[in-house]
Amino acid sequence: MKPTSPISTKRAAKVLEEIQNDGRIRTKPEVVLLANSTTPHCDNSFFYLTGFSEGLFEHSYLSVGNDGSLTLLTSEMEKLIAEPEAKGISINTRSPGKPLGDELKKLVGSSPKTIGLNYSELTVQSLQSVESAFKTSKFVDVSEPLRRARLIKDEVEIELIKRACDISSKVFGKISSIVDRPGITESEVAAEMGLQEQKMGGGSVPFDTIVAFGRNSAVPHHFAGPSRLLRGDLVLMDYGAKCGRYCSDVTRTLVYGRATKTQREIYDVVFEANELGIDNCVVSNTGEEVNSKIGSYIKSRGYSVLHGYGHSIGLSVHDDHGLDNNPSYLKPGMVITVEPGVYLPELGGVRIEDDILITKGKPRILTSATRELIELHPRAS
Amino acid sequence: MKPTSPISTKRAAKVLEEIQNDGRIRTKPEVVLLANSTTPHCDNSFFYLTGFSEGLFEHSYLSVGNDGSLTLLTSEMEKLIAEPEAKGISINTRSPGKPLGDELKKLVGSSPKTIGLNYSELTVQSLQSVESAFKTSKFVDVSEPLRRARLIKDEVEIELIKRACDISSKVFGKISSIVDRPGITESEVAAEMGLQEQKMGGGSVPFDTIVAFGRNSAVPHHFAGPSRLLRGDLVLMDYGAKCGRYCSDVTRTLVYGRATKTQREIYDVVFEANELGIDNCVVSNTGEEVNSKIGSYIKSRGYSVLHGYGHSIGLSVHDDHGLDNNPSYLKPGMVITVEPGVYLPELGGVRIEDDILITKGKPRILTSATRELIELHPRAS
Repeated sequence: MKPTSPISTKRAAKVLEEIQNDGRIRTKPEVVLLANSTTPHCDNSFFYLTGFSEGLFEHSYLSVGNDGSLTLLTSEMEKLIAEPEAKGISINTRSPGKPLGDELKKLVGSSPKTIGLNYSELTVQSLQSVESAFKTSKFVDVSEPLRRARLIKDEVEIELIKRACDISSKVFGKISSIVDRPGITESEVAAEMGLQEQKMGGGSVPFDTIVAFGRNSAVPHHFAGPSRLLRGDLVLMDYGAKCGRYCSDVTRTLVYGRATKTQREIYDVVFEANELGIDNCVVSNTGEEVNSKIGSYIKSRGYSVLHGYGHSIGLSVHDDHGLDNNPSYLKPGMVITVEPGVYLPELGGVRIEDDILITKGKPRILTSATRELIELHPRAS
Repeated sequence: MKPTSPISTKRAAKVLEEIQNDGRIRTKPEVVLLANSTTPHCDNSFFYLTGFSEGLFEHSYLSVGNDGSLTLLTSEMEKLIAEPEAKGISINTRSPGKPLGDELKKLVGSSPKTIGLNYSELTVQSLQSVESAFKTSKFVDVSEPLRRARLIKDEVEIELIKRACDISSKVFGKISSIVDRPGITESEVAAEMGLQEQKMGGGSVPFDTIVAFGRNSAVPHHFAGPSRLLRGDLVLMDYGAKCGRYCSDVTRTLVYGRATKTQREIYDVVFEANELGIDNCVVSNTGEEVNSKIGSYIKSRGYSVLHGYGHSIGLSVHDDHGLDNNPSYLKPGMVITVEPGVYLPELGGVRIEDDILITKGKPRILTSATRELIELHPRAS
């Protein structure tokens, strides 16, 4: 039996193939160099290629040679994390006091003709450091091939996203007991949801959990705050879990009490838009088409469009352009969100968001939390 | 009485003054333009200048004119958040379909001679967008003046950091009841600490909480995982809270059971190094000096140096170069961590980290959690 290649080797091969096939990259780089700055400005493609589940890896570098060889340049401290996890990756450590330029030359060779860089996650300051180390080299942006490679998830990635989606879905199964406490605040709901996720094996939450009561739910990116729950409120929760750096991203909305006619009306519109969107997550549609079908439906029901209706997820919550800016056809292995919303400033908003794996056939819904309208009847207090 | 200027106006004035006083910036920019990409690659200086406590503000821009005027370019969706919070900031919204270049010209004028950009947080891709909108303009890096402005915290910032530190300290006050459960995992401890912080008014945790049992504590950036607590383990917790985007960053280490001679020995060394470091957080020392005094002490006790011993905190957990790379004198208003650590691969590590406000006189310790060694005696189970 042929031994299985480490995941980093397979991903490097995928990236190199995308670079080879990219007609806009005329001069193929001899080496790709990924450079992390300080958090939050580390490159998620660094974590894609290494697969490292722990550590910060600030000011660490990864080179990918034309032959698929991977070499890491990191600190003695992060080496403690890299060493047990690094399969198929050589490790160099930075010597304190030694000029960065010398270390980079040791990493990628003294004068490669062309170096590929990830312009979508590289800071200008890091670019300048690399430029001053390689004065005679040319640089080429490989962010598009990296984006395309990361857009199609491999089995390991799908498994991690699926686990994150399972955790988020299970937490929603407990939502009645989390929310139904007299005088509870948005922050307390967010905190309890995070606790439950981590108890089920999730890491820290991948983004600031949105919990919005009443009118706050009309502001799509409202964070959880000190507002207290009132009978009759819409309760919008936009939250995620993280497994091995991979994210889920789910939104559910419920009513605390009996839904009014208007609340039920907008819920139904969003529910139907969500179903329509999911049904359209097939390889014969482009991202833009899915987005515009959802938008047309919402407009046809008399409501306005406030944001795009989905995006790729992965190592980042927004792992790619939104669907609304994506003219390419969906492909098997993509994982995208479908998240229509309707917002009425005086009343609040409803959003329903699911995470969908694109397959050759029907879309696979990774988020199993119920999408039916929950009317949470307050306990007698 | 003179009306008080909004905080954004004061901060803009501080940044412009730093630019004026920077001898390396020969051509002063007519306008500073901050550009957010997709999370995590948003510019923390954008949040420093706007003071926005909510929202993502992806692909949003902020211009700071030479006269201190502030103008935001954002989406209709994020405008819902910006509007109530924006004091002293004009708001433009992006029209879907309109070229970005046209919107940017409306924001900063059609052809400013020189535009200041934040190279330490700007992606190369965003730089290219700006360059193609302003083909005749020159660009100048204003990351150093921004860094210096953000390094000295104003009253509002100190209050937020202090609240975050208070929350983290109070959580440590409950640590016995959190940790002392038979078979508890690192992840469960991390989750419960996050819950308690949020119950006290903190936001989502600012970084992946490190909880490390036993040998795991010898790896400084180990994340919380499935390891279960055993009697005799060192328990290292490196965690933070967030208030209005500002972070605390605290580390405490305890022993689950009676400390062995070696555990107590390394605890004492780190404790003394921490005290020595804090005592040296005075304006007559540079960052490097504080760092090297701690390092020398640890080496004098026979242990090796694995990482730098502190950094500035603020909107980012690592808000500046580490102390070890900071040749400047400390100044009143800086908030830095002091975090010596000693790590023995076969046994584990001890780190004690506090957040210190530099004043004209004695350093002010913002983290009040006890630094005495806690021997947590397991309950009879």
